[in-house]
Amino acid sequence: MTRLTLAVDAMGGDFGPCVTVPASLQALASHTHLVLLLVGDPDIISSFLAKADSSLLGRVQVIPAESVIASDAKPSQAIRNSRGSSMRVALEQVKEGRAQACISAGNTGALMGLAKMLLKPLDGIERPALMTVLPHQQHGKTVVLDLGANVDSDSDMLVQFAVMGAVMAEEVLEIAKPRVALLNIGQEETKGLETIRAASAVLRDTPQINYIGYLEGNDLLTGKTDVLVCDGFVGNVTLKTMEGVVRMFLSLLKSSEDGKKRAWWLKLVGRWIQKRLAKRFGHLNPDQYNGACLLGLRGTVIKSHGAANQRAFAVAIEQAEQAVRRQVPERIAARLDAVLARSDKA
Amino acid sequence: MTRLTLAVDAMGGDFGPCVTVPASLQALASHTHLVLLLVGDPDIISSFLAKADSSLLGRVQVIPAESVIASDAKPSQAIRNSRGSSMRVALEQVKEGRAQACISAGNTGALMGLAKMLLKPLDGIERPALMTVLPHQQHGKTVVLDLGANVDSDSDMLVQFAVMGAVMAEEVLEIAKPRVALLNIGQEETKGLETIRAASAVLRDTPQINYIGYLEGNDLLTGKTDVLVCDGFVGNVTLKTMEGVVRMFLSLLKSSEDGKKRAWWLKLVGRWIQKRLAKRFGHLNPDQYNGACLLGLRGTVIKSHGAANQRAFAVAIEQAEQAVRRQVPERIAARLDAVLARSDKA
Repeated sequence: MTRLTLAVDAMGGDFGPCVTVPASLQALASHTHLVLLLVGDPDIISSFLAKADSSLLGRVQVIPAESVIASDAKPSQAIRNSRGSSMRVALEQVKEGRAQACISAGNTGALMGLAKMLLKPLDGIERPALMTVLPHQQHGKTVVLDLGANVDSDSDMLVQFAVMGAVMAEEVLEIAKPRVALLNIGQEETKGLETIRAASAVLRDTPQINYIGYLEGNDLLTGKTDVLVCDGFVGNVTLKTMEGVVRMFLSLLKSSEDGKKRAWWLKLVGRWIQKRLAKRFGHLNPDQYNGACLLGLRGTVIKSHGAANQRAFAVAIEQAEQAVRRQVPERIAARLDAVLARSDKA
Repeated sequence: MTRLTLAVDAMGGDFGPCVTVPASLQALASHTHLVLLLVGDPDIISSFLAKADSSLLGRVQVIPAESVIASDAKPSQAIRNSRGSSMRVALEQVKEGRAQACISAGNTGALMGLAKMLLKPLDGIERPALMTVLPHQQHGKTVVLDLGANVDSDSDMLVQFAVMGAVMAEEVLEIAKPRVALLNIGQEETKGLETIRAASAVLRDTPQINYIGYLEGNDLLTGKTDVLVCDGFVGNVTLKTMEGVVRMFLSLLKSSEDGKKRAWWLKLVGRWIQKRLAKRFGHLNPDQYNGACLLGLRGTVIKSHGAANQRAFAVAIEQAEQAVRRQVPERIAARLDAVLARSDKA
């Protein structure tokens, strides 16, 4: 496989280099064609690299950055003062062609703003959207967006999200004619917000999109659609709600017995079955699909959960690798051209 | 206990009398002080009552209604043509003092509009909100509202929801100084929608409310707050997402083995443990807390899930019974008076 270089904002996220550096080494170990630029405080990063295997270190480069954007900083302010920050320097690696994608667990608003400023949106895209691929009940996958890149989305933006989501489903998940639905509070045409109803009307008239109508929150994991489109506020709350419930179930499944005394063999069998169940639900574990892709830019940017652990951050790096290999931005641009050209003719 | 009369829209919901009448009989059997007015087509209702225990029939009265509001009807249209419908006649029983509360599994928008028109909002309330009480991880309960009575809520409405939620938590759940939080997409003050930030500023300045700030979707079931306030669109999507995930887990837990051949004793123990787990999560089963209360009216109205089964609809009837016994509307009115009076002085 051809070499592939990714820039990692090593200082971002709740745990910074304690998580990002070991996760980077993990990704390097399992992807031998990968080169990683670790952006941040060289002393701190080097201290985490000290004990790494020398075969991996050959594919690591440390890029110095003086500052870090705080997770709770106001995005507008953070962007103004972003020069020299690990997040911005990492994005600049992509802008200047030294890396093919960037991964950060830092401040979402700042990442979104900086990425838009430095990498520019594709023609026909007003604002990029955060997208993730969720595993569903039927053991397939659903593309969900926007997850919070924008708090207010008008109907045009929802339509653009739908186009980008459909490309993701078709090109990356390899689903032919992916079904696209809008998230709403009822399935009837008359339900919900005005913006959603307007987007629905446009999608119905867009032959390039296999639009199937509205779905409700309880269909997030049922696999009734391949692409689920919503505004960023609702998407963020919905995804976090789902993750909260899944984590609660997984932790209850793993948690110890209910205190009653039982025979040792019953305990053993019980533990074995709990493990099996936890494994059965494992594909729903949020850590398994960490990494939301900022779609609609002339480059690939992956946003990791701020609280990601090593395994989860390594998954985010793999997402970036995959998005680059599948040429997601290029394919979205091509599809947008087609949809926009045809709708201009109409 | 004193007699208590409730009006049931027997025709509403996905299954109509097939569910509402048996559920009514179930509620009558477990609450001997209850009298139920079953509103709808007398012939159909009677046919479901035919085999009922005569001791229960003494506490049932059938109130004729000619029509049914369709679940997918446009609320404004449905309300215009509502005269004589089972939902409206049921609400009229409350308005005219013949019943103390009404339960319906019918069209949410129509129920909300008709209830507001017939029962009138309390002083200081612009629009009623749908509220439910969710079980949380710490085995306590959280009041969540609005769940979809309104699709667009301004900051004043969010503050009113907060006051109503706090009264519910204090008076019905008996939590002293209940914690109140706003649902948002981040915990920092700068996050989220303008309306939410404005409501937050008002709540911080309202000494009668124990406001604790923002919470995110993943905290829906963690018990970090006693009252969680959001606009109706977000609340509806969030609740349905949560229910979807919980139902998926419960069905996977109950579902049969993974196909591998195992010793009979292992299968038996496996089934026993699965049952135990299902029981352990049982309090999270959406059927256990069916029935959202329409708060902010001069009367009690309970909205059941349209797809409620018999057990779930019986729970909704019990919610109505409890709301009446706890004098929820009266207590909310009194608290609103206090908050409004003090904020007028300020």
